[in-house]
Amino acid sequence: MIFEDVVKKAVEETSGGLAAIIMAKDGISLSQYLREDIGAMDLEALGIEFANLLTEIKKAAESMEAGEVKEVLLTTEKYLAIIRILNPEYFIALICSPNANLGKGRFLLRVKAPALLKEL
Amino acid sequence: MIFEDVVKKAVEETSGGLAAIIMAKDGISLSQYLREDIGAMDLEALGIEFANLLTEIKKAAESMEAGEVKEVLLTTEKYLAIIRILNPEYFIALICSPNANLGKGRFLLRVKAPALLKEL
Repeated sequence: MIFEDVVKKAVEETSGGLAAIIMAKDGISLSQYLREDIGAMDLEALGIEFANLLTEIKKAAESMEAGEVKEVLLTTEKYLAIIRILNPEYFIALICSPNANLGKGRFLLRVKAPALLKEL
Repeated sequence: MIFEDVVKKAVEETSGGLAAIIMAKDGISLSQYLREDIGAMDLEALGIEFANLLTEIKKAAESMEAGEVKEVLLTTEKYLAIIRILNPEYFIALICSPNANLGKGRFLLRVKAPALLKEL
């Protein structure tokens, strides 16, 4: 399955990649992958937080007349999250350690987006 | 003044840079700079939207136990926004065209942050 393949590859091929999830904006996960050696992470709960945030960000973008939201990057002390909006229903999020290879992670999500979109 | 200097340089030295603002989380602007040739942009209103968003993002980061939020990048059809959190009170946002030099913009905000922090 393409969904399983993309989340796994995004994590494995990004230096510092920890987990990835494809989720609907209502918080239902379509596919997810968590690196085995990183211990416990409630990936579904993280995805739901992202889904809520994306709703807020979309509202803000509308007020700003900024057009459709395409990508959100979020850096915190513990994580770097790359979130790419696939269509109005789905997004893919790659969660990395803060010193991850941001460029590679963004690239992987961007080049895989068209193939994911075909199946959504 | 360092604030005026930093917002101006961030815009002028980033290819695709349009505007920059240093703002308190309550939506009061400390310093702003808008490239003269880009026409009308309600930079203060944009900043207020960012301030609101950062409040939501901070709440989400707390639920995720992700630590302090450091940076947010937001790509829409019309803009690329780089937002760096300076301290719990202030942030700096650089607004660019979507095809801007993201790496340069991030770099400029990051290296200027310590000097801004000294004055805040």
